[in-house]
Amino acid sequence: MGFTHFNEQGRANMVDISEKAETTRVATAASSIEVNKETYDKITSQEIGKGDVLAVSQIAGIMAAKKTSDLIPMCHPLFIKGVNIEFNWAEKEGKYRLLIEATVKTKGSTGVEMEALTAASVCALTAYDMCKAIDKGMIIGPTYLLTKTGGKSGDFTREQGLTDWGV
Amino acid sequence: MGFTHFNEQGRANMVDISEKAETTRVATAASSIEVNKETYDKITSQEIGKGDVLAVSQIAGIMAAKKTSDLIPMCHPLFIKGVNIEFNWAEKEGKYRLLIEATVKTKGSTGVEMEALTAASVCALTAYDMCKAIDKGMIIGPTYLLTKTGGKSGDFTREQGLTDWGV
Amino acid sequence: MGFTHFNEQGRANMVDISEKAETTRVATAASSIEVNKETYDKITSQEIGKGDVLAVSQIAGIMAAKKTSDLIPMCHPLFIKGVNIEFNWAEKEGKYRLLIEATVKTKGSTGVEMEALTAASVCALTAYDMCKAIDKGMIIGPTYLLTKTGGKSGDFTREQGLTDWGV
Amino acid sequence: MGFTHFNEQGRANMVDISEKAETTRVATAASSIEVNKETYDKITSQEIGKGDVLAVSQIAGIMAAKKTSDLIPMCHPLFIKGVNIEFNWAEKEGKYRLLIEATVKTKGSTGVEMEALTAASVCALTAYDMCKAIDKGMIIGPTYLLTKTGGKSGDFTREQGLTDWGV
Amino acid sequence: MGFTHFNEQGRANMVDISEKAETTRVATAASSIEVNKETYDKITSQEIGKGDVLAVSQIAGIMAAKKTSDLIPMCHPLFIKGVNIEFNWAEKEGKYRLLIEATVKTKGSTGVEMEALTAASVCALTAYDMCKAIDKGMIIGPTYLLTKTGGKSGDFTREQGLTDWGV
Amino acid sequence: MGFTHFNEQGRANMVDISEKAETTRVATAASSIEVNKETYDKITSQEIGKGDVLAVSQIAGIMAAKKTSDLIPMCHPLFIKGVNIEFNWAEKEGKYRLLIEATVKTKGSTGVEMEALTAASVCALTAYDMCKAIDKGMIIGPTYLLTKTGGKSGDFTREQGLTDWGV
Repeated sequence: MGFTHFNEQGRANMVDISEKAETTRVATAASSIEVNKETYDKITSQEIGKGDVLAVSQIAGIMAAKKTSDLIPMCHPLFIKGVNIEFNWAEKEGKYRLLIEATVKTKGSTGVEMEALTAASVCALTAYDMCKAIDKGMIIGPTYLLTKTGGKSGDFTREQGLTDWGV
Repeated sequence: MGFTHFNEQGRANMVDISEKAETTRVATAASSIEVNKETYDKITSQEIGKGDVLAVSQIAGIMAAKKTSDLIPMCHPLFIKGVNIEFNWAEKEGKYRLLIEATVKTKGSTGVEMEALTAASVCALTAYDMCKAIDKGMIIGPTYLLTKTGGKSGDFTREQGLTDWGV
Repeated sequence: MGFTHFNEQGRANMVDISEKAETTRVATAASSIEVNKETYDKITSQEIGKGDVLAVSQIAGIMAAKKTSDLIPMCHPLFIKGVNIEFNWAEKEGKYRLLIEATVKTKGSTGVEMEALTAASVCALTAYDMCKAIDKGMIIGPTYLLTKTGGKSGDFTREQGLTDWGV
Repeated sequence: MGFTHFNEQGRANMVDISEKAETTRVATAASSIEVNKETYDKITSQEIGKGDVLAVSQIAGIMAAKKTSDLIPMCHPLFIKGVNIEFNWAEKEGKYRLLIEATVKTKGSTGVEMEALTAASVCALTAYDMCKAIDKGMIIGPTYLLTKTGGKSGDFTREQGLTDWGV
Repeated sequence: MGFTHFNEQGRANMVDISEKAETTRVATAASSIEVNKETYDKITSQEIGKGDVLAVSQIAGIMAAKKTSDLIPMCHPLFIKGVNIEFNWAEKEGKYRLLIEATVKTKGSTGVEMEALTAASVCALTAYDMCKAIDKGMIIGPTYLLTKTGGKSGDFTREQGLTDWGV
Repeated sequence: MGFTHFNEQGRANMVDISEKAETTRVATAASSIEVNKETYDKITSQEIGKGDVLAVSQIAGIMAAKKTSDLIPMCHPLFIKGVNIEFNWAEKEGKYRLLIEATVKTKGSTGVEMEALTAASVCALTAYDMCKAIDKGMIIGPTYLLTKTGGKSGDFTREQGLTDWGV
């Protein structure tokens, strides 16, 4: 299969999807941010109180999902019907990783992989922004598609074990 | 040092930077996208012609730098004075990785780490979007700050060798 | 009934509306701005000529309705099919109140209360902006939903007499 | 004093502020949302846990401050240097009112009244959105300027006692 | 036929299209930019290499199509299903004109004339921006609708020969 | 002089302007829209009343000036300090042309040609949108820079007589 985004003059275009069926489509993407112990302690203890890094990051991720077609040039606009972002923590040898899973759902003629990947990415970027006064060495990602259902190109499920963290 | 984004009620706020000096500030962030051989071949051969995945990705990254304070809730708006995005390819055991370095410059009272990280992230997301009809298993990142200069919190330089790819 | 915007981790999410029926939905919201006699005289006499505070305010309100899901984090994007903003003046004991009614119509799977409330609010904010060189003591609102039709949660009609102005 | 937003043809224009001095300017605006006891109980008990209506509303208000010149047609763009939103609750005869105070700071050639008023308004609108599944009869505002300092038009302080709630 | 954008108070409104049928609609608009020989030579020789004025202009045009309802106050939001921008060069008496044709497709209840005209306009504006260091005397347009199909107001096709360039 | 927007890899970048002096800069751009007699009569008679095509178009042009760096990929963000749009009518052989002049002023390190051209273009596009129910054959432009002052590249003034209309 070749590229779908180039026109006959060899330039980028937004491909015509007007004949594609409107179906329910769901995609889940993963990202993460690796932080040191001090940052981990600060995030998790704040989380008990009213203000919380995860709350800001999660809201930013949800809002970013709605801006995907504004950010990605050849991405079609679509109506997001639901977004959910879940967090988990992993720990390994004194390093902590905030695991981010963003799930986006639509009913439309194109998939929501980009919306899920964008939500997860901006969620991680916001966590970086909230904590960068403590440590600028945080590492975002890897960021990747976990699952995708709906649409004629078939479902996609990533095999586990992407990194040596098993995440 | 504690968090800088929470107000006295324990909620997030946008910290007051009105007393910070206006200086020239530069930040460079790195991201990457790992693709399979088919995708690599398609990207690089298209690159010779007029249409080109890298051109779209790079423009998206530059435009995203300008939207950073719109995406990251507690990020201060600032005037970007220059953005540059450079690409390189790495190859290892039949896998190919497009290396992305985004440099952002400003003259202002706050740093441009978030702008550089956002530019690099959206550049990688756009490359994913352009190629996802071939392979949905591409992996974005890790994404991280390489260097930062200017501002009173001091300069930052990342030591090399972040991943086993040496990138 | 509990909150509809929190996920199982207790964090906000954008609720899944993919199974909700697409129906015609209409909502009307009211806001107002109370001004002194000088401002009232200036607005109404300008209104006869070509330039007019109400024209700018009304256009701002209509444009804001289209930005609602960009402003309200958990609000679903939807297609506005029509917007109308009507003005009336009330007078009481030498004070003048510009009454604003914004009606928004859509055909979709979620209501347009937020779009109508946002249109009315930004319309009033713009009137404030246009007149603030004369008087900064203007008072916006109360702002509230007047009526809502369509959707399975039932119709809503506010009883009259919200304020002692009867508006 | 006449209107400042109309050009010689009697149409609106964005007035020239290029000769105005760059000074530190601060404005605080107030808004509120009146809710019934059920909504009040739900908001305040959720507040103890991780997810919280006030967190989403407050972030929305801060982000809206950055969008003010995009919403208000004749409003000059400016760099917000800090935003803070504080909440308080008032109770009267079984009704509850969430009091919102938004303070915006800049260093520039125009004031930030509109940014503070927009932040307070969108904060209240978001609270409405988060709770509207429980009750659509909530009332937003009055919304008004509390104080303003900086700039040659002089400082502004509102006398207390705006409503019969004393808020 | 009268204006469709004014309400009963004589003010602008966004007309109600909720009863209009959803059909496939296509519109093509033309614009152009006239440049001198030096600029023409620079654009066309760059085009052979990797960087290219046309690539940036074309991407800007596609992205602008998605922003149409954000720019044009009374324009309804809609889902663009495809966008394509084609370039051609015309030469006459030592002057060169880059001809731009933007085609936009949707499936919805309103036409895409404005989206096509906006895409063509912003494409030409971007070409101006990319080349203005060489020559500020470039001329954009005329910009006009070439064809429109779909929708009950009937198809539209412009007769050729708009200018003395035959374009 | 060569292109200023390509980096060493031959790709587009946003050029570094951090060393350019902050000065007052003004640019005026012209556009126009040619309409038939019916449209002209409708626009001009409405203009006497409260609703008015020119008012909507002018506000759209002013708001678009603020979005220029969002639309034009390599355009630097800057603070617009003032915008004014003036209208005039020309008549020739039964055809009418609405002449649009947009003037933008800033104090910054880069010029405002693109802001003036964008304001004039979107103003004309909006007039098209407001009148297209009457006639889709309207012609926008030519659109071009009239004058520019400030900045080290020198002033620019266009000689009159661009078209055979003398406008």
